[in-house]
Amino acid sequence: MNSPSAHTAPGGQDTPGSEDLSACWSALREQSPLTHCLTNIVVAPFTANVLLAAGAAPAMVDNAHEAGLFAGAAGAVSVNLGTPYDDTTQAMRAAVRGAAEHGTPWVLDPVAAGALPWRTGIAHELIDSAPPAIVRGNPSEILGLAGAEGGRGVDSAHGAAEAVDAARELAGRTGGVVAVSGEMDHLTDGDRLVRVPHGHVWMTKVTGMGCALGALMAACAAVAVAAATSRSWPTAALTLAAEDAAQTARGPGSFAVALLDELHRLEPVDLAGRVGLR
Amino acid sequence: MNSPSAHTAPGGQDTPGSEDLSACWSALREQSPLTHCLTNIVVAPFTANVLLAAGAAPAMVDNAHEAGLFAGAAGAVSVNLGTPYDDTTQAMRAAVRGAAEHGTPWVLDPVAAGALPWRTGIAHELIDSAPPAIVRGNPSEILGLAGAEGGRGVDSAHGAAEAVDAARELAGRTGGVVAVSGEMDHLTDGDRLVRVPHGHVWMTKVTGMGCALGALMAACAAVAVAAATSRSWPTAALTLAAEDAAQTARGPGSFAVALLDELHRLEPVDLAGRVGLR
Amino acid sequence: MNSPSAHTAPGGQDTPGSEDLSACWSALREQSPLTHCLTNIVVAPFTANVLLAAGAAPAMVDNAHEAGLFAGAAGAVSVNLGTPYDDTTQAMRAAVRGAAEHGTPWVLDPVAAGALPWRTGIAHELIDSAPPAIVRGNPSEILGLAGAEGGRGVDSAHGAAEAVDAARELAGRTGGVVAVSGEMDHLTDGDRLVRVPHGHVWMTKVTGMGCALGALMAACAAVAVAAATSRSWPTAALTLAAEDAAQTARGPGSFAVALLDELHRLEPVDLAGRVGLR
Repeated sequence: MNSPSAHTAPGGQDTPGSEDLSACWSALREQSPLTHCLTNIVVAPFTANVLLAAGAAPAMVDNAHEAGLFAGAAGAVSVNLGTPYDDTTQAMRAAVRGAAEHGTPWVLDPVAAGALPWRTGIAHELIDSAPPAIVRGNPSEILGLAGAEGGRGVDSAHGAAEAVDAARELAGRTGGVVAVSGEMDHLTDGDRLVRVPHGHVWMTKVTGMGCALGALMAACAAVAVAAATSRSWPTAALTLAAEDAAQTARGPGSFAVALLDELHRLEPVDLAGRVGLR
Repeated sequence: MNSPSAHTAPGGQDTPGSEDLSACWSALREQSPLTHCLTNIVVAPFTANVLLAAGAAPAMVDNAHEAGLFAGAAGAVSVNLGTPYDDTTQAMRAAVRGAAEHGTPWVLDPVAAGALPWRTGIAHELIDSAPPAIVRGNPSEILGLAGAEGGRGVDSAHGAAEAVDAARELAGRTGGVVAVSGEMDHLTDGDRLVRVPHGHVWMTKVTGMGCALGALMAACAAVAVAAATSRSWPTAALTLAAEDAAQTARGPGSFAVALLDELHRLEPVDLAGRVGLR
Repeated sequence: MNSPSAHTAPGGQDTPGSEDLSACWSALREQSPLTHCLTNIVVAPFTANVLLAAGAAPAMVDNAHEAGLFAGAAGAVSVNLGTPYDDTTQAMRAAVRGAAEHGTPWVLDPVAAGALPWRTGIAHELIDSAPPAIVRGNPSEILGLAGAEGGRGVDSAHGAAEAVDAARELAGRTGGVVAVSGEMDHLTDGDRLVRVPHGHVWMTKVTGMGCALGALMAACAAVAVAAATSRSWPTAALTLAAEDAAQTARGPGSFAVALLDELHRLEPVDLAGRVGLR
């Protein structure tokens, strides 16, 4: 494995320049990709609202009768293991198969992997069934997928930097990108590493912030932009919107509301001009 | 089928005058009808909050053990096909049967009908089981129920006016009202047509806005008002509240919050005075 | 049964003094107890956000494969019967068993007990399986558990004072505390009674306010504080935050948002200084 480089980005090319980020964000708004979400009962509303505010078109289809079919029609599929049930995990299996058959990129958010054996097994089964374009989790979840014991449920007991080796290994296996959320977000394709230094501590005080990021990464994976070689731009967009939201919010309630406003208002040129990837 | 008339309203009589709208909205607050909702994991919270803000009493009972019984006790039943599962569709069947047995009006929101065959079949089965007082959907969903291919999931690929013929045909079959949501809402009882020209584009950027309208229409169908011959007043109320909310909101996040405030603050006299049905 | 006393508190000792409340609230923030929630599709997001704003760590794990295991790892378990299904009720049974095996306190929120026989039976089964540390409900639900007919779904047809005898009897049976929510909250351990006079009418216009309180009581039950002999402090905190939120809110939408802000901002010293238990 190579050492981290501050000037190359996961996904195959160099760290995106400002024109690239601007083009990506513009393309998301123009293409409004249909984003098929199989997510959990806690974060479904916020996830849908984040996708809508960003310009994507969310659709939650999480029964086994329809998930495979719909994954073929969607631009991307987001699978989140927050509250898995027997029937929705059947739908997840169908969605991943449907995505693989149609070449639809899919994103895995392995909530609480490592901490809970049943869902950890499902996460591995899904990954083995068809490699996800992106895995997004907190450090404990990424370590948990690599065989460590993980955190306590949705919380992370580890910092993002601690999970970088596990993330590289996982990305090497899937051939995709692994994103580790934290105070500093880390993204790797197994080789290169990009760090996104934006965000606000209130992001940890709103339920579903990480889950919404996973779904936003799926939406962005559906966008066809020649320049979109990096997977870091949805993380940059959400965390910059969070910084804007924190300027006016009084606490986590108004912060979550303002974040949707700011994400909707975020201009391509501002995204490009303000981001400071490392 | 008759041609549209700007001066008669679906539901059996003329377009409601301002006294009627005022009386309807007052009655909703006074009677606080128990509204039995079988809805989806994405919109359940917002739906409940819209009903509460309007003055209704929402209750989500969506298991087959209880849904039939509860439909008999409720003032109206709202069935939304957003995230159907095997067990909740059993509950929907029981609720519709229970509603029919007790003469409880029920409302169908056929989310993604036409786009997904399994749920389209369930929608038809429910309609055949007992005619809904109201069907509310976006144009693609109403066209999808009529046999067209529908849009891509929850999105509409059609304008409301395109679905008017399909809406009339469906209303003729059910003997109820069909409401087509869009930039201009269209409501028909198969004969007359009313158009509600209010609203705001941010309504499309908040998840569950249409679903909440379906549930609000159910709540209003439960209200016993002699003058309440039109089904258009809940649409008028929600879209006028949206216009008020947009005055102060910065984006879709604060808009959704303000909409609940404005719906709660909407006075009967203001509803009557400001509405401009066509 | 003894008559109510204004100067002793349920849970074994006297009404907490200001030092106790301050210490409890500080401890919640410092310990951030992992709170295992099995709740319903309507209130799950708000419940999680209330717990996060207060300083707890919510985790919704409501499948039967994992719920028993997770209940043993959590600081407390919150079981809410809002939208029970066959599979989630299996998870509730497993969670209560797991809690009992590990000595984890658990809280029951018997939504619509008395009004709906199926879930009323499940509530009794769970109570018989292992006594809950706290039962929290509205007056009709507490009366419904005692064999009365209950209200209409989630609404209460009774005032809190009417349910005090039923609450005492239930607390006597469980050996825990029973909390009756209402304009004036009543808490009893079967012997003593404490009344919490804070709150705002908009608490009844936001879905899941009572459910979130049940989960917050679970989080607080997980906090190890020598002084935490009363169960009334989470009720005091939420209702005081509600009073603060109502100062700036324009209606129930902005009220719910502001309540999260105020709960997050509530200082231990302010909680202690402002509360007026009776």
